[in-house]
Amino acid sequence: MKQIFKTFAVIAAVAIFGTQNLYAAIKCQYVDASTLTVINKAQENNPVLQRLDPNKYEMPKGIRNSMKLSTGIAVLFTTDSRNIHAKWKTISKRSCNNNMTPIFHSGLDLYIRENGKWFFAGVARPKINGSNEHEFTVVKRMAEGKKECMLYLPMFNGVSSLEIGIDEGATIEPLASPFKHRIFFVGSSITHGASACRPGASYVARIGRILNAETPNIGVSGQCKLNDFYADIVCDSKADAFIFDTFSNSTAKIIDERVYNFVKRVAGAHPNTPLIFLQTLKRDIGHFDLASRKRNDDQRAAAEKWMKQICKEFKNVHFINHAFELGDDGEGTIDGTHLNDLGVQRTIENLVPKMKKILKKYGIK
Amino acid sequence: MKQIFKTFAVIAAVAIFGTQNLYAAIKCQYVDASTLTVINKAQENNPVLQRLDPNKYEMPKGIRNSMKLSTGIAVLFTTDSRNIHAKWKTISKRSCNNNMTPIFHSGLDLYIRENGKWFFAGVARPKINGSNEHEFTVVKRMAEGKKECMLYLPMFNGVSSLEIGIDEGATIEPLASPFKHRIFFVGSSITHGASACRPGASYVARIGRILNAETPNIGVSGQCKLNDFYADIVCDSKADAFIFDTFSNSTAKIIDERVYNFVKRVAGAHPNTPLIFLQTLKRDIGHFDLASRKRNDDQRAAAEKWMKQICKEFKNVHFINHAFELGDDGEGTIDGTHLNDLGVQRTIENLVPKMKKILKKYGIK
Repeated sequence: MKQIFKTFAVIAAVAIFGTQNLYAAIKCQYVDASTLTVINKAQENNPVLQRLDPNKYEMPKGIRNSMKLSTGIAVLFTTDSRNIHAKWKTISKRSCNNNMTPIFHSGLDLYIRENGKWFFAGVARPKINGSNEHEFTVVKRMAEGKKECMLYLPMFNGVSSLEIGIDEGATIEPLASPFKHRIFFVGSSITHGASACRPGASYVARIGRILNAETPNIGVSGQCKLNDFYADIVCDSKADAFIFDTFSNSTAKIIDERVYNFVKRVAGAHPNTPLIFLQTLKRDIGHFDLASRKRNDDQRAAAEKWMKQICKEFKNVHFINHAFELGDDGEGTIDGTHLNDLGVQRTIENLVPKMKKILKKYGIK
Repeated sequence: MKQIFKTFAVIAAVAIFGTQNLYAAIKCQYVDASTLTVINKAQENNPVLQRLDPNKYEMPKGIRNSMKLSTGIAVLFTTDSRNIHAKWKTISKRSCNNNMTPIFHSGLDLYIRENGKWFFAGVARPKINGSNEHEFTVVKRMAEGKKECMLYLPMFNGVSSLEIGIDEGATIEPLASPFKHRIFFVGSSITHGASACRPGASYVARIGRILNAETPNIGVSGQCKLNDFYADIVCDSKADAFIFDTFSNSTAKIIDERVYNFVKRVAGAHPNTPLIFLQTLKRDIGHFDLASRKRNDDQRAAAEKWMKQICKEFKNVHFINHAFELGDDGEGTIDGTHLNDLGVQRTIENLVPKMKKILKKYGIK
C-alpha cells in the first residue's frame, strides 16, 4: 500500500508539475556545494561561492557588488547518481540582462569528464518570474557509474546557497581539482562573459578547459579602466599567468594616463609570471556608428602604441594585438560589441595558439 | 534663447536618462512601419506584422497564438537619416525565455545593405521589467547618404505596433524587396530560431540573406508534429521552395503514422516545387541522458527510413540526412537541444551548399 501511494504521489506530481519536477518528487538527497571542491576564486580566503572578497580594496560600489558575483566559479565533484539536480538562491531576483540569456546570467552549466575531456551535460534554468529561489534537474537518466562533474555557477548573479541533489543511495564527494595551471583573467564585460549562451561557454571558461587551467575571472561589465584597485588585486593574487582585457573599457586618454604605471605595478609584483595584455576587439557597432568607430580606433591605437614600448621594458609583459577575432561578416556579436558564441569560437581559434606560444616559454603547457 | 533652451534641454535629458535617450530628446519624426515594405509573411493577406493569420486553420490555441508572432518578419526601407530609432509594442509583456536573450525574444535587429551585402547595424533592446512598450535607438551617428535597411522583428513575441524614428528633416520610404527568391520554412523551436542571439542571427534569417531569398518562418516551439494543419498551410502558401524541419518534435511513432500522408498532401499541392525535408539534429543532451538519446535515435531512424522511400516516389521531395551540424565538441547548443550561434554557423556551413545543390536543379540560384 505504501509503495502504491508513493507511485501515485509521483504520477500526481508529474501531472501537476510536469516531468521537470519528477525527480523532485522521487526522493533525492541534497548536499551543500560548499562542502565540495570550489575552484576559480580569485584568492584563497574568498567567501565560498564568490569570485573575490572586495572588502580588502577601495572601489566604487557597483564594482564591489560585481566582485561578489559567482562569475567563473565552478564546483567539482564525483558522483554515481544517474540524475543530478540543483537548488540555488541568487542574490539578485533579476535573472537576465537584455543581451544575455537567463541561463548565462543566473543559471548553472554542467560538464562531465570522459577520457580526460570535459563534455557539456546539461544546464539548470533559473526562474524568470522575479523569484531568487531556483530548482532544476541538470541532467537525468545517465548510465550507471562514477562521473567527474564540473558545475559552473551564474555569470551575472551571486549565489548565496547551492545544494546539489543526487538519487537516494547514490554517493557524492569532492573531486580534487584536476587542472594543472591557474590563469587569472582581468577585464571588461567581454571577459565577464557577455554574451555567451551559458556559463561554460564563455571564452574564459572554454580556454580553461582547453589549456587545462583554473581560470579566476574578475571581468566587470563596463568598468575595467586600468584602475589602481585592479592592480592591487593582481598584485595580491597568485597565478601561473595573468590575462588582461584592460583596453575595452578604457578610452585612449585613460590608456595614455594609466597603462604604464598599471603595468609597472603588476610587473613589479609578478616579475617572472607571464602578463599577457589583449588588444580590445574591433567592434562591429563601429561599422556604421562613426563616433563608436573613432573611439574604438583611438583606444586600439593607444593600446598598441603603449604596449609596444612597454613590452620592450618589461620582459614578462606580452601584448596580443589581434586577440578577439569576430570575423568580417558582422555575425560574431549580439549587439556590435559583445561576443556571441560564434564570436567566442572565432576568438578561441585565434587566441589560444597565441597564448600557448607565450605560455610555453614559461614551461606552461 | 530658444536654441540655448533646446541645448539645455538636451543636456538635461542626457544627464537624467543617459545617452540612450539623447535622440528621443532631439526632435525626430516617426513613421508607422506598416506603411513600409513588410516581408516574410507566410501568406499575402496576413495581418501586417504577423507571420500568419491562423484563423483560417484548425489548430490548438497555443500554436494559434504562436502563429500570431512576428517571427521572421522584417521591414524594408530606405532612409538618409543618420540615426534610427524604434518604438514598438509587444503583445506579451514577457520579454525572454530561459534559453534566449530578450533581444532575440522581443527585440529588433537592423541590417543595412552595402555593395549588395547585408551587414549588421544594431539592435533595439526591449524592456525587461514587464512593460510591453519599448523604445530604443537602433543605430546612431552614421555617415550621410541613403541607406537600404532591413529591420527584423521579435522572434518569440508579437508586435501590435512599430514606429521607426528618423532625424527631423530626413526622409524614409519603402524599399521594394530586393530578394530574388522565396523559401518557406516549417519547423520546430530550432526553426523558430532558438537560441540565436538576435532575430537576424537565426539560421532561417541567415540563409535568407545568403540565398537572396525572403524566408517566411512558421517554426513553432515544440509543436511541429506533421499535423494536418501544417500541410494545409503549406498547400495554401506560395514559395519557390519549402523547407521542413518536421522531425525534431515528432516521435518515431508520429513519423510512422503521419509522414507519408503529410508528404503526399504537400507534394500534391506543389508538384513542381522543391520540398526539402531536413533530418533532425543529433542532440547533445543525449550524450549523457540515455532516454533522450534513445528517443532522438529512434526519431532519426524513422525519418531516414521513411524519407528514403518517399523520395523515390515523389520526384520533387528531397531529404538532407545531415542537416543540423553542431560539431562533436558539445559547444553548439545552449541546452543540449537548441542551437547557439556557433551551432547556427556550423549548420549554415553544412546546410547551405546542400540546399544550393538541390535548388540549382530547379533554376533557383
